[in-house]
Amino acid sequence: MNRAFDLNTLTVNSERLWASLMDMAKIGATPKGGVKRITLTQEDKAGRDQFVAWCKVQGLSITIDQMGNIFARRAGTDTASGKEAAPVMSGSHLDTQPSGGRFDGCYGVMAALEVCRTLDDYGIKTRHPIEVAVWTNEEGSRFTPVMEGSGVFAGKFTLEHARAQKDVDGITMGAALDAIGYAGPAQCGHPVAAYFEAHIEQGPVLENANKVIGVVSGGLGQRWFTITVTGMEAHAGPTPMGLRRDALQGATHIIQAIDAIGRGHPDTRATVGYVKVEPNSRNVIPGTVTFSADLRAPTDALLAAMVENLKAECESECAARKLEWLIEETVYFPPTAFAPECKEAVRAAATRLGYPQMELVSGAGHDAIYLASVCPAGMIFVPCKDGISHNEIEDAKQEDITAGCNVLLHAMLDRAGVV
Amino acid sequence: MNRAFDLNTLTVNSERLWASLMDMAKIGATPKGGVKRITLTQEDKAGRDQFVAWCKVQGLSITIDQMGNIFARRAGTDTASGKEAAPVMSGSHLDTQPSGGRFDGCYGVMAALEVCRTLDDYGIKTRHPIEVAVWTNEEGSRFTPVMEGSGVFAGKFTLEHARAQKDVDGITMGAALDAIGYAGPAQCGHPVAAYFEAHIEQGPVLENANKVIGVVSGGLGQRWFTITVTGMEAHAGPTPMGLRRDALQGATHIIQAIDAIGRGHPDTRATVGYVKVEPNSRNVIPGTVTFSADLRAPTDALLAAMVENLKAECESECAARKLEWLIEETVYFPPTAFAPECKEAVRAAATRLGYPQMELVSGAGHDAIYLASVCPAGMIFVPCKDGISHNEIEDAKQEDITAGCNVLLHAMLDRAGVV
Repeated sequence: MNRAFDLNTLTVNSERLWASLMDMAKIGATPKGGVKRITLTQEDKAGRDQFVAWCKVQGLSITIDQMGNIFARRAGTDTASGKEAAPVMSGSHLDTQPSGGRFDGCYGVMAALEVCRTLDDYGIKTRHPIEVAVWTNEEGSRFTPVMEGSGVFAGKFTLEHARAQKDVDGITMGAALDAIGYAGPAQCGHPVAAYFEAHIEQGPVLENANKVIGVVSGGLGQRWFTITVTGMEAHAGPTPMGLRRDALQGATHIIQAIDAIGRGHPDTRATVGYVKVEPNSRNVIPGTVTFSADLRAPTDALLAAMVENLKAECESECAARKLEWLIEETVYFPPTAFAPECKEAVRAAATRLGYPQMELVSGAGHDAIYLASVCPAGMIFVPCKDGISHNEIEDAKQEDITAGCNVLLHAMLDRAGVV
Repeated sequence: MNRAFDLNTLTVNSERLWASLMDMAKIGATPKGGVKRITLTQEDKAGRDQFVAWCKVQGLSITIDQMGNIFARRAGTDTASGKEAAPVMSGSHLDTQPSGGRFDGCYGVMAALEVCRTLDDYGIKTRHPIEVAVWTNEEGSRFTPVMEGSGVFAGKFTLEHARAQKDVDGITMGAALDAIGYAGPAQCGHPVAAYFEAHIEQGPVLENANKVIGVVSGGLGQRWFTITVTGMEAHAGPTPMGLRRDALQGATHIIQAIDAIGRGHPDTRATVGYVKVEPNSRNVIPGTVTFSADLRAPTDALLAAMVENLKAECESECAARKLEWLIEETVYFPPTAFAPECKEAVRAAATRLGYPQMELVSGAGHDAIYLASVCPAGMIFVPCKDGISHNEIEDAKQEDITAGCNVLLHAMLDRAGVV
C-alpha cells in the first residue's frame, strides 16, 4: 500500500495527548496540583463520562460490563466466520488514591485513546480491533482488594464477591456501581488477542538510568508477613543492661536482616514499613514489637529462599537474646512473567523509534498482571519525576509521556496487524 | 543503761508490719490483687486517714503542710536552747499508679511507722525526734511532675506551681488537696537531721544476686532525647534496594548503638522505649522515624560522654545512608550521691543483722533523691518478685520486707542517737 507517511516512524499527537491528560486531571483536581478521583464517586463518574464522550466523538463503540469496566472498540477488518477477531487491548484505570497524581492510571487510558485517534488521523485499518479499557477500582483505596475490575475480568474473584465489598461507610461496591450508573449489562470477561498497558514507572529506576522506555519483563511475586518479637517489659531505670530482654533490640536485628535479604538479587525487594512497639513509653523497655515484612521476587523459588532466610534470622537473633518470635503470612501474590511476543513488540518499537530503553520488573501491581493470566500481555513504563507516585506532586515530562504512547502505538500495531 | 534486750540485735514486729501493709492494700484494692490509690482521690484520703489514725494510736504528733505532706513525729530528748533537735525522718508515699501494687511507696511509710511502734514497744528514747513522712503525689500519674510533695519540700518547685497543675479533667492539684482536706497549715520545708527511705527495688538486681538488702549509693542522673531520622518515603515494590533512603534502616542502627552506649559502664542505662514510624504502612519504605533515648548515669560526666557518643553514632549512621537526623533534649534530671554517713549506717546495720547485702544505684526517682538536696539521705532496697513494679502483680516476701525494716530501725537509731 502506498501511504503519504512512513508507517515505521509514525508518531502520535503529543499536544493532544497532553491536553487530554490535563483535561482529565481537572476532574477531582486538588489545590496542590494532584487529583482525588476515588473509585465510583461522583468524580469517578465525571471522569468516566468524559472518557466515554471522547470515545463517542471518535466513533468508538462502548461496552460496559457488570463490574463497571469500560471498553471502547475501534473495529478491525478481520471478520472471518462472521465474527470479529479478538481485540488488541490497552488501557489502565481512571480512579486515583485520595491524594493521587495526574498520571497514575489516567496515562494508560489516555495513551490508548490517543492510539485510536492517531489511527483515525492517518486512516489506518487493523486486522484485529483496537480496544481501550478502563478498569474499575484499581487503587483499592475505597474498596479492597486492589485491581478488582481486571481481577473479575480475569476470573480472580467473582462478581458477587466484588459487589459485596464495603467502604468505610458501609456502602457496597455493587450499590456504588449502581448509583453512578456504571453497572453495565455485559458479562465480565471476553477474548483478548493481546494486552498492553502504558504506565508511569512509580519508581526511580528509569530516571536513575537515564532511560525513556522501560520494557517490563513481568511483575514481582509478593509474600507479606507479620512478625512478633516478645521479651520482657521492664522499667528503664532500675533494670541493668545485662538483665534485659528488650524486644526492640531483637527486632532491630531482624529488620536489618530483612533489608539484607532484599539485596541478595538485583530484582528482589524486602521492606519493613510497619512497626508497633509496646507499651511504647519512653522509660519502659519494650516487651513486644510487631512489624511487617514485604518480600518481592520474580520467581516463587526466589521468594521461598527469602522466606527461609527470614525465618532463620528470626530464630538466631531471638535465641541470642532470649526472646520469643512468631511469624504469620498474610498476603501471597504470585510472580508474573509477561508474554515474550509482547515484550518483544515493546522492545522493537522503542528500538525503531530510537528511545533509550531498558528491561525492568514491575514491583507494584497493575491491571496488566491479571490480564497476563488470560492473554499475552506486556507493559511500557515511562519515567516519573524522582520516582514519586501516589502523591499530589507526581509528575512526568510530556516528551516521555509521548514516547511511551508512540511505543504503545507500534506495539499494538505489531500485534493487531496493519491492513 | 541496763536493758532487758540487746539493742544491737533489736528487730521490729514482722507480723504487725505485714498486717499494716495488707490493711493499707485494702484501700483501693483491685480485683487482680493490686492497688489503685491515685493521688488526692477519695481512696488516697482514706489511706491518709488510716495512716493518721494509726499514728494517733501511737501518740505521734501530726503536722500537715500546704502540699499535703504528712509528718508524724515521735519526740526526741534533745531540746537544747528550748528547741527540739531536727528529726531523723523516714517515709515514702501512699499514692499508687492506676494499676499499682501493694508495696511501691506504702512499704516505706509502713516501715517508718513500724520503727516508731518498735521503739515504743521497748521504751527506747532517742536524742533526735523520729519523724514519719508521707509525701504527696510521688507517682505523677494524675498531676505532673512526679515527686511533687518532696519536690516542694526541698524547694525544687514552688507551692503555687504545684497547686496550679491540672489533671485530665481540669481539676487543679490545689483544688484536689482542698477537696480531701489535706491542704494543711504548715509551711513546706523544715530542718531534717537525716532522711532514710525503705523501698522495693523495682528492678531485678537484688533477686538476681540473691541479696536481701540493697545499700543505695545514689540516684542516676537522666537525660532524655527525641531523635528524628528522615529519608525518602517510597513504594516498596517499585523501589530497588540500592536506590532507597530508608529511615527505619538508619534508625535501627542508632537504636542498637544506644543499647551499646548503655553497656559502657556497669551503672549506666540507655533505653529506646518509644518508636514512631511514618507513614507506617506495610508496603511503603519509611520516610521518617522518631524515637526516644533515655540515658542514665551516676555522674554528669558519664552522661555527657554518653550524649557525645550518641550524637556521633547518629552522624555516622545517617551519613552512611544519606539520611538526615535531628536530636532534641527533653528531660534532664541531675545525678544524686547519697550521704556517706547514711550509706554507712545502712551498710553497718545490714552487716550487724547478718543480711546478705550489696551496693546498688537507684535507676528510678524517689522522694529520697529530693530530700538528699536538703539533708543527709540514704535508701534501703529490698527485692521484689521478678523485679516487677508499677503492676498489680508486684510482690515481695515478708521476710525481705521485715529485713529492710530492721535495717531501717538501726540506721535511724544510728543517726538519732539512743539515750
